[in-house]
Amino acid sequence: KMMPTNRRFLLERRPNGVPALADFRLAEAPVPVPGDGEFVVRTIYASLDPAMRGWLDDAPSYMPPIPLGDAVRASTVGRVAASRNADFPDGAWVSGLGAIEEYSLAQAGGFMRRVDPDAVPSPSNYLSVLGAVGMTAYFGVVDVLAAKAGQTLLVSGAAGAVGSLVGQIGKILGCRTIGIAGGPEKIARLTRDYKYDVGIDYRGKDRVTLEREIRAAAPDGVDLVFENVGGDILDATLSCLSPHATIALCGLISEYNSPEKIGARQLWQLIVHRASIRGFLVSDYLARFEEGGAQMAAWMQEGKLRFDEHIDHGIENALPAFLRLFDGTNEGKMILQIGEP
Amino acid sequence: KMMPTNRRFLLERRPNGVPALADFRLAEAPVPVPGDGEFVVRTIYASLDPAMRGWLDDAPSYMPPIPLGDAVRASTVGRVAASRNADFPDGAWVSGLGAIEEYSLAQAGGFMRRVDPDAVPSPSNYLSVLGAVGMTAYFGVVDVLAAKAGQTLLVSGAAGAVGSLVGQIGKILGCRTIGIAGGPEKIARLTRDYKYDVGIDYRGKDRVTLEREIRAAAPDGVDLVFENVGGDILDATLSCLSPHATIALCGLISEYNSPEKIGARQLWQLIVHRASIRGFLVSDYLARFEEGGAQMAAWMQEGKLRFDEHIDHGIENALPAFLRLFDGTNEGKMILQIGEP
Repeated sequence: KMMPTNRRFLLERRPNGVPALADFRLAEAPVPVPGDGEFVVRTIYASLDPAMRGWLDDAPSYMPPIPLGDAVRASTVGRVAASRNADFPDGAWVSGLGAIEEYSLAQAGGFMRRVDPDAVPSPSNYLSVLGAVGMTAYFGVVDVLAAKAGQTLLVSGAAGAVGSLVGQIGKILGCRTIGIAGGPEKIARLTRDYKYDVGIDYRGKDRVTLEREIRAAAPDGVDLVFENVGGDILDATLSCLSPHATIALCGLISEYNSPEKIGARQLWQLIVHRASIRGFLVSDYLARFEEGGAQMAAWMQEGKLRFDEHIDHGIENALPAFLRLFDGTNEGKMILQIGEP
Repeated sequence: KMMPTNRRFLLERRPNGVPALADFRLAEAPVPVPGDGEFVVRTIYASLDPAMRGWLDDAPSYMPPIPLGDAVRASTVGRVAASRNADFPDGAWVSGLGAIEEYSLAQAGGFMRRVDPDAVPSPSNYLSVLGAVGMTAYFGVVDVLAAKAGQTLLVSGAAGAVGSLVGQIGKILGCRTIGIAGGPEKIARLTRDYKYDVGIDYRGKDRVTLEREIRAAAPDGVDLVFENVGGDILDATLSCLSPHATIALCGLISEYNSPEKIGARQLWQLIVHRASIRGFLVSDYLARFEEGGAQMAAWMQEGKLRFDEHIDHGIENALPAFLRLFDGTNEGKMILQIGEP
């Protein structure tokens, strides 16, 4: 009988700009054998997130860079395939910080937790609405922005995995919601699927035009901003704030593939509007994930939250699937299915 | 007997970049005559502040642009020269929002308040330590940053009118203070006159070098930043923050004369450090100026606050005096003396 092998998607070289195939290598390795207290997770779903682009660089960040030669780090959902840890028996469903590889070795006290596949329409939901993506949207709106009924909330990347949830949560809390996204199909989804009051298409528009459209949608100014994108979109937003506005800075996807950082050129508008930009990481809310998960699950059951997952298949498609995040061809939370349930 | 004339420093053209003499005109006009409830202020001191550069442009801001042909708006200290308002009798000392002109017409309920010349070493102090400059430093440190003992406070423009007070207030509150300024003379003043623990000279240094020097001065990261400058200094600072750091954004003097805005290129560091940038305007604290003034006066009397004023003389020198703010040749709060007490 053939020994099963472990196909792994390895980082070979640090990308310069847009990641290329030559930056990675698909390698075969033996399936890891668990030591005392360890267990092996067979990966079924891997989450593909914009933040992973930063982990490919060697810049200092909130997570160490992925070492060259290692499998690319990712949040995953899988099942225990071999175990020397009684809390994680064979066949148990788990989710946590793994890698784009068929089998991952997990330690006790690590980042894997057990999840209940019967509590959700699909176990992949633990990478979207009930995973880091959902928690980012929830705590961004509820805690960082502290959204209140009657406020105007602007979201960039509004049709994306996080943004689509942010808009709906804002709406549940009574906000007027404005979404910015790229292309007519996404704009149609903003108001139809994610209940945005207004959708603005940023494609082909310069900062001044975007400013005019935002101001038309929010004549009294934008009170709350959930920022995923950066660049011209952030610069246009900065000129349309209401006094004492808050910007929750979740991501800057427009510049992740660019060696040159743009940031916020219209930063002086923060002074004009006495406004603030607050960067945040969902990992700071780990202790409150249970609260967030319960609320998101309740809203799901009440039919108040729509979420979309875009699942590509096959570890050999890891890079093209990842790049969808940057060319915008994904329709919902980007997930790579590596194994069968 | 000759009618007295009113020499006025008028804005003739909106400056492109660094303001030039041809952008202004020194004109003579009749001294205004007060209507019912009005009074005329003979200007003695005019405050020259970086923020005035923004008022010369026609960009939307927290104050309307100075109209072409009007005298350049400035905070002033002067004495009532003619009055039809019993609250502001002839000879009374006043301070408020006036203009660079020998005589200003003031309305009842406007921005002029009476000040006591005997309560201070010099009435010009109402434009520095007891004026907007002092209140900006006080509320920036006490309210926006909410500085606590043991925190590390970094100040850019640290030898300037606001920055020199910020450092001393931080020190009074028990912070470790790091000042950034330009040139060896200013650096010497930082530790000698303004009690900074460390002075960093930014001159001739790129962002990476500045980063290294800030990190050496604050190995555990900077908790609080009082930002007056922007550009490479702000970018370097953003990489040296401690978790959940706060940046009070007071000004961005490095880009006021540049049509191209730079802002914060390393904005993504806010995410890494879960840090925030808060823009503020001292005018939001008008209702608390009495509290701030009393505290600053008390610290002055205890000998805890040193403040320097750089007084140039003559309305005809308004532009070169103003430009000192941008080439850094002022030594303390920049004030133009227009009249005799």
